[in-house]
Amino acid sequence: MAGITTPEYRRCPVTGRWVVLAPERALRPIQLQHGEPHPRRDAASKGVCPFCPGGEAMAPSEVYAVRDPGSAPDGPGWHLRVVPNKVPAVKELPDSSPLGITPDGFSEAMIGYGRHEVVIETDRHDSDPTTLTDAEFARLLVAYRERLKVMAKNPRFAFASVFKNVGAEAGASLAHLHSQIVALPIVPDAIRAELEAGNDYYRRERRCVYCDMLRFEAESALRVIEDGDQFFTACPFAPRFAYETWVLPKAHDSRFETATDDDLMVLAVQMKRLLVAIDVVLNGPAYNWYLHCGPLRAGNMPYYHWHIEVAPKTARAAGFEWGSGCFINAVPPEIAAVRMRAALR
Amino acid sequence: MAGITTPEYRRCPVTGRWVVLAPERALRPIQLQHGEPHPRRDAASKGVCPFCPGGEAMAPSEVYAVRDPGSAPDGPGWHLRVVPNKVPAVKELPDSSPLGITPDGFSEAMIGYGRHEVVIETDRHDSDPTTLTDAEFARLLVAYRERLKVMAKNPRFAFASVFKNVGAEAGASLAHLHSQIVALPIVPDAIRAELEAGNDYYRRERRCVYCDMLRFEAESALRVIEDGDQFFTACPFAPRFAYETWVLPKAHDSRFETATDDDLMVLAVQMKRLLVAIDVVLNGPAYNWYLHCGPLRAGNMPYYHWHIEVAPKTARAAGFEWGSGCFINAVPPEIAAVRMRAALR
Repeated sequence: MAGITTPEYRRCPVTGRWVVLAPERALRPIQLQHGEPHPRRDAASKGVCPFCPGGEAMAPSEVYAVRDPGSAPDGPGWHLRVVPNKVPAVKELPDSSPLGITPDGFSEAMIGYGRHEVVIETDRHDSDPTTLTDAEFARLLVAYRERLKVMAKNPRFAFASVFKNVGAEAGASLAHLHSQIVALPIVPDAIRAELEAGNDYYRRERRCVYCDMLRFEAESALRVIEDGDQFFTACPFAPRFAYETWVLPKAHDSRFETATDDDLMVLAVQMKRLLVAIDVVLNGPAYNWYLHCGPLRAGNMPYYHWHIEVAPKTARAAGFEWGSGCFINAVPPEIAAVRMRAALR
Repeated sequence: MAGITTPEYRRCPVTGRWVVLAPERALRPIQLQHGEPHPRRDAASKGVCPFCPGGEAMAPSEVYAVRDPGSAPDGPGWHLRVVPNKVPAVKELPDSSPLGITPDGFSEAMIGYGRHEVVIETDRHDSDPTTLTDAEFARLLVAYRERLKVMAKNPRFAFASVFKNVGAEAGASLAHLHSQIVALPIVPDAIRAELEAGNDYYRRERRCVYCDMLRFEAESALRVIEDGDQFFTACPFAPRFAYETWVLPKAHDSRFETATDDDLMVLAVQMKRLLVAIDVVLNGPAYNWYLHCGPLRAGNMPYYHWHIEVAPKTARAAGFEWGSGCFINAVPPEIAAVRMRAALR
């Protein structure tokens, strides 16, 4: 384990990624204004919120909603809505359009085909995920699951990325609680790397590397935050970010879509406990979370294991990280886990 | 080429990385305070600057300097100094220490061995690289070269990462102009990926992919910013960041260390012209640059080509990028190049 002044390289057993743990870097002098990310409480919203009730006309028609009985789509009476992103990063095209484009014979490109949806998580203008009740949080996870099932019906989508940005420093542009889902015709690089590393391990050991990691981490207890009956919350061995935390199901499955409503209620409670601990320890930081699950329609892969990664933003990536792909993290996960465990109590 | 509203996936011919170009995303509403990165002019410095003359005692002893004749190390009379980082991310150990640590039988780790140096680029308390004279800028590049040569003498160092952070949003913690050099016992992931992609291409085509890219980009002219006699400045085909720009030597070499003083004077002038163009177009943004060159002592590799990548910070990576490894860029490089070419004139 990294000491207080001894830096350490660590290789993530499930992604193969190397990071540098450099605890002493936490003590470096910072003289620039805005030299550290702002706590997200600074991030007050301005202008009319397009996600508040009354703003339904500002977005395309809803594709999923939790509504009062008898209320009509795109009108009042909703509690959670999923709508197409008004300014999508990728767009759907007629089914027959070819996706490939060869711009020049040297490079490779493809039409920006895909589906970009926004999950408006509540009708209240709240920005803090821990203000969701347990039932509301579970409803959000159910919405993720239901939209993934719908995305899987389009055979041209290979993967759907489910993620959430909390606070400007984490890339959020609107305050009102929302998540995003982007379905893509390709499996993106980070997921492909995890699938390949998981497959390598499986071919060698005939076991899921995540299942092995769960057993191993539960035994060592060094990085565990909450070892629940169904879900496991822990800092990974080689985190890119200070206080980075993963939540995994204890039973093997590569598909998030198979989680039942009951499972998701348990997960919601455990996720909320983690987010409260993060807020206590880091004074309400900006953070991202993202769901990592298998490709759409891939079935239950023996070598992959779905999980949610939560990544607080306490420092900014700099030239070293962008240029080398290797992250310097000033907080060893053993220290982060101790602090978050204490906050949970 | 990506239109104004049609998103496009692009695969970088030299890294293999996919990105999404989504021009429409530039129009999305931003309601959060600090929702966009601050221009670096906001980043005023506070406290006593450890890099100003008189602060020499605040850092470890210099390992390289440009000094007035007869002036003594670690005293006044310097114009550029290289010093060990006072709060290093990695540390040097006695030569015989083993680097491997097996923390637990499941994971892989290594002592945080390395060398982390700071290049203090001027004795003036300036924070804008374009305030360096041409000769001062060339002197900085010479310092990079000389330190790389010294790093190469330690057989345990596999690679040295040379980079610069300008502005808090790019990860800078101090304003006074400085660069950093981190020597590592491993070749980091991003460089390894480029080496592998370059090697694949070479085995297939028997040519350097960067040399082919240079010829191809010069011909198409779509993304060229400056096509000089010795160096080529262009936006890459699949940039992760808006206005990302690469500067490459036109003659093949994987080693930065072989550049002569004359070469580096030409490069300095061309780099400064690029940085001025970036400041004009983006109103003085934060940015990083990083040198990508071959591993230490690898000789002139036929399949790799050194280059400097300059990456303005005009948006923040969010859950999609951190979770998928795929970047959404709202400014097609063809548009960025047109604007920067106009600013150069």
